[in-house]
Amino acid sequence: MIVDKLVRNPGSWLSRDEAIRIVMSSRVRLARNLRGMPFPSQARQDENESICKQVQLACDGVVALSSPVFMDMGQLDPVDKSVLKERHLISSELAEKGAGSGLMLVEDEHSAIMINEEDHLRLQCISPGGDLFSVWQRVDKVDSELEQLLDYAFSSRLGYLTACPSNVGTGLRASVMMHLPGLQLSGLIDGVVRGLNKIGLAVRGLFGEGSQACGNMYQVSNQVTLGLSEQQIIERLASVVAEVTQHERNARQRLLEGQRTLVMDRIGRAFGILSHAWLLSSDEMVELLSILRMGIEFGLVSGTTVPIVNEVMLTTQPGHLQKIAGKALGTVERDEMRGQIARDRLKDMNLRVE
Amino acid sequence: MIVDKLVRNPGSWLSRDEAIRIVMSSRVRLARNLRGMPFPSQARQDENESICKQVQLACDGVVALSSPVFMDMGQLDPVDKSVLKERHLISSELAEKGAGSGLMLVEDEHSAIMINEEDHLRLQCISPGGDLFSVWQRVDKVDSELEQLLDYAFSSRLGYLTACPSNVGTGLRASVMMHLPGLQLSGLIDGVVRGLNKIGLAVRGLFGEGSQACGNMYQVSNQVTLGLSEQQIIERLASVVAEVTQHERNARQRLLEGQRTLVMDRIGRAFGILSHAWLLSSDEMVELLSILRMGIEFGLVSGTTVPIVNEVMLTTQPGHLQKIAGKALGTVERDEMRGQIARDRLKDMNLRVE
Repeated sequence: MIVDKLVRNPGSWLSRDEAIRIVMSSRVRLARNLRGMPFPSQARQDENESICKQVQLACDGVVALSSPVFMDMGQLDPVDKSVLKERHLISSELAEKGAGSGLMLVEDEHSAIMINEEDHLRLQCISPGGDLFSVWQRVDKVDSELEQLLDYAFSSRLGYLTACPSNVGTGLRASVMMHLPGLQLSGLIDGVVRGLNKIGLAVRGLFGEGSQACGNMYQVSNQVTLGLSEQQIIERLASVVAEVTQHERNARQRLLEGQRTLVMDRIGRAFGILSHAWLLSSDEMVELLSILRMGIEFGLVSGTTVPIVNEVMLTTQPGHLQKIAGKALGTVERDEMRGQIARDRLKDMNLRVE
Repeated sequence: MIVDKLVRNPGSWLSRDEAIRIVMSSRVRLARNLRGMPFPSQARQDENESICKQVQLACDGVVALSSPVFMDMGQLDPVDKSVLKERHLISSELAEKGAGSGLMLVEDEHSAIMINEEDHLRLQCISPGGDLFSVWQRVDKVDSELEQLLDYAFSSRLGYLTACPSNVGTGLRASVMMHLPGLQLSGLIDGVVRGLNKIGLAVRGLFGEGSQACGNMYQVSNQVTLGLSEQQIIERLASVVAEVTQHERNARQRLLEGQRTLVMDRIGRAFGILSHAWLLSSDEMVELLSILRMGIEFGLVSGTTVPIVNEVMLTTQPGHLQKIAGKALGTVERDEMRGQIARDRLKDMNLRVE
């Protein structure tokens, strides 16, 4: 099963590249629908199933998608769905659906298409780092090929038509996952989030819409999909991301210079707990790994790397844990397994004491 | 100054003896007053000063008190008063007083007499461990000698007269400091406290009346001072303490057998934070040291000892820290110094991983 293979890999949005830091990953998704068909929430089951078939067939013909695999939401068990959510491949909304909806996934996870989520198609490309433009180019290539094979609902006045008016036009949402512990520790994050909201950007938590910020990770994305070209949306977001990245760098520098004890305390505690706890909840794990990551980036923690931290963060999510264990696990069992993984995978790390 | 010397010593109620565990220390105090003189809260300043003088003079003649030192509450600065409170030598009530009240202290800190606290005299003896009876004998000896030198307010019907009716009779309060992390971790402590209250015993926190339980340390003491002989009060308390000790032992055994992961988690976290934190509040410090102490007693933490834990607990109290630093310290400076002391004094410890 493809999900069994996935859990062994680091995930497309989490980098194996040590150089990728504040901007963790970039994602672009396009909402598309088939002309003359009711939107998924309005469609009958047989209509949804027919759409699902049609999209699958089309995907098989797309050169830019190399041998995509179809996963039927009616067939996946809850643990598999959790794994896909934790890897940012499907939304909670899709996970709740059954037959007549699914995911087309390319094995490297860089491209994925949700079928019959809110729209008939949600095309997504995701990559580590901040190169939004090349991510956009990749999804655009898939979209262009699909457009030859499917009859998209398109209005020359409005652009692509979507189930929710907020997506009409380009149907494009570009989002960037940022790791902002410096702004958080400095107490500046709320101001930054308010500022981003004011200029029409959404800021969400690790798991997108409705999720809390966790582990100082924030998804910044455009809200406006109409009245701007795709290129303009991407450029605008990229320039804001560059600015926030600079803010984060400055905040970290100020912390290191002016609040070294606070920084050492946070990093030391994260280090101490990850090395010695026997029970770790999912939320605490992500918080501690976030601080550890900052410690590595500050050169205060050695013997481990950001890619290892990324891997631990992903593999200790509830779905991944259960997939790795090969069975359903209760909360305490999961907390215990998380402690075990942290102690094992991070056992070579050292804290530089100054 | 005597206080400068005190802070270098481990404190009379904290043992240097590795064998002393669940019952940390035993204390007996006697409330006494001088016949014909108003109680301290009712007395004029000159009356208080005269009583203070009179008691001092008498103490100098007591063989059982070897060269006691007088400390005038009107002369001590706030840091010195904090040190004495942290060493359980004076109460908060006495610390708030000025000239006309004070402390007679024997240098080994096993005997102390508060003058003009709530009563004219509060004689106290304290020792590590649970031998209440010998502590009682010691304070009784001091009391018997003083009774020859001072005219105690005594009624043949009621016994010793005291400012608060709750102390009339024997004027005796015996209390035992117990370390009960097993009952706390097992969720049994509230039931035990309710049970003790029901049979007329008071249960207080680390710093006596009005203080919260902290670091799983509980002071258990008699409430009734009338209608029982001193011997009976001591025997009754001692037998209850023996029972609670057995409960604690059972709870620890059950935890080790049935909830080993929880135990390892708590001890591991305490170990990890104490070894790696840069900022530690007073409360957190006591909590962590309490768990570390249990870890040592379980044989899960090596390379340090209960007496070292005791010493760190006492010397990282706010007053002690400032006395050691030789200057007033703000909260953050104290938290930082606590982190430093923990990392230094506990640096040789090891966690046994099973």
